[in-house]
Amino acid sequence: MIQSVTLVGAGNLATRLGSALKQAGIEILQVYSRTEESAKTLAQILGTGYTANVDDITLSADLTIFALKDDILENLLSRLDLQGKLIAHTAGSLPMSVLAGHSEKHGVFYPLQTFSKQREVDFKEIPICIEGANAEIEDELSELAAKLSGKVERITSDQRQSLHLAAVFVCNFVNHFYYLGHEVVQKYGVDFELLKPLIQETAGKVMEIDPFEAQTGPAKRFDETIINKHLKFLSDQPELKEIYSFVSRSIFDAHKSE
Amino acid sequence: MIQSVTLVGAGNLATRLGSALKQAGIEILQVYSRTEESAKTLAQILGTGYTANVDDITLSADLTIFALKDDILENLLSRLDLQGKLIAHTAGSLPMSVLAGHSEKHGVFYPLQTFSKQREVDFKEIPICIEGANAEIEDELSELAAKLSGKVERITSDQRQSLHLAAVFVCNFVNHFYYLGHEVVQKYGVDFELLKPLIQETAGKVMEIDPFEAQTGPAKRFDETIINKHLKFLSDQPELKEIYSFVSRSIFDAHKSE
Repeated sequence: MIQSVTLVGAGNLATRLGSALKQAGIEILQVYSRTEESAKTLAQILGTGYTANVDDITLSADLTIFALKDDILENLLSRLDLQGKLIAHTAGSLPMSVLAGHSEKHGVFYPLQTFSKQREVDFKEIPICIEGANAEIEDELSELAAKLSGKVERITSDQRQSLHLAAVFVCNFVNHFYYLGHEVVQKYGVDFELLKPLIQETAGKVMEIDPFEAQTGPAKRFDETIINKHLKFLSDQPELKEIYSFVSRSIFDAHKSE
Repeated sequence: MIQSVTLVGAGNLATRLGSALKQAGIEILQVYSRTEESAKTLAQILGTGYTANVDDITLSADLTIFALKDDILENLLSRLDLQGKLIAHTAGSLPMSVLAGHSEKHGVFYPLQTFSKQREVDFKEIPICIEGANAEIEDELSELAAKLSGKVERITSDQRQSLHLAAVFVCNFVNHFYYLGHEVVQKYGVDFELLKPLIQETAGKVMEIDPFEAQTGPAKRFDETIINKHLKFLSDQPELKEIYSFVSRSIFDAHKSE
């Protein structure tokens, strides 16, 4: 059973994960970050020690979690002697195999959520996707995950990659369309606030209804009168006009065989 | 004070609006729809009469609300003698002026939300955007709106048009990206369910944080390693690949001067 963890990384994910682990009764032995200040800040939150020196990373924890940007991870791994240690990364976009050469005992611990400094998230609601080099490791990591979240899933590296990509669509791209909507109304002195109930309902709808079924609006039925009116309205904002046409076409293509 | 309404239209909006009006103590005198069955269904919900015959539309209500598709509205208006009657339409994309030739007493009553058969929405949370041919009409319509919702705004036709367009961005386009995310994971046998907490949090975030500030992910920082990995992952889904590139570029363009 995993009872202690060393946290390599001190970004948003490491911060939220560290707090959740501590709350679940896991001992955090140490926090590492390249930036001493980041390491110190998180270590203080977690009431533990820290280092910004790779050679001083404590490897005696039951599990060492690497919560780092992808390119930093691979470089750091090569500077540590991890043989025999249980290690896991938290990256959606990296296959488990990047750890294979560093320790036989390896796996992935991927919480699927967007983490920001400004907002607390309830870890119990966050799906944690687990992969392990063998069944025993998968069990150990799943058991740890179950202490943090009610939604633990075992998935393969390919499945995790598909989730990471889909997360870009449903989070980053979606947020960009919130931003573009904000741009559209701001020009006319309209408060973005008025769009918030619609944003909430649009998200709420797909909690219950398949997103294909949930679609409405002019693009789906290719209502040229409204589409042309919107394009005309955007005539002095060519980037918005282009993206409006492009996405409307994509919606129409998806629905035209209905 | 508006105490009675005739409802011209029996679609999703008319249904939700009619129920909210009735609950607020407004008498619904009649429901009209081109389709007798739709008219009858809604009339039964509202406990009132109905007609599918334009010549039988009751014009004795304090207010006649036209909740119809844009092209149907203009045709129907020309077949009614509305002079002296208070009339309003509910269309985001039509200026108030489409009513001007039909009655001097006209205005717009635009509830900004996505309505569907499958889901109840709490009308109290829906912004209702009001415009009136004069201050008195604006007051009357605002007073009625305040019986249904805590969020009543007076806006111009241009502002309403900008909201209607922004709604396409934050609702229809956003929903399309939910659908595309669904497509991405489905191919790998991953349950869309896993993405739901992320969808909720992404919407929840912009309730508090400006969407520009809320942006994260590979496109914002133009992380070529991850972007290229995602594009490679989509190599056998050219439409998804194209839309991924296009939207990533738009995000990068928006953030590059940061």
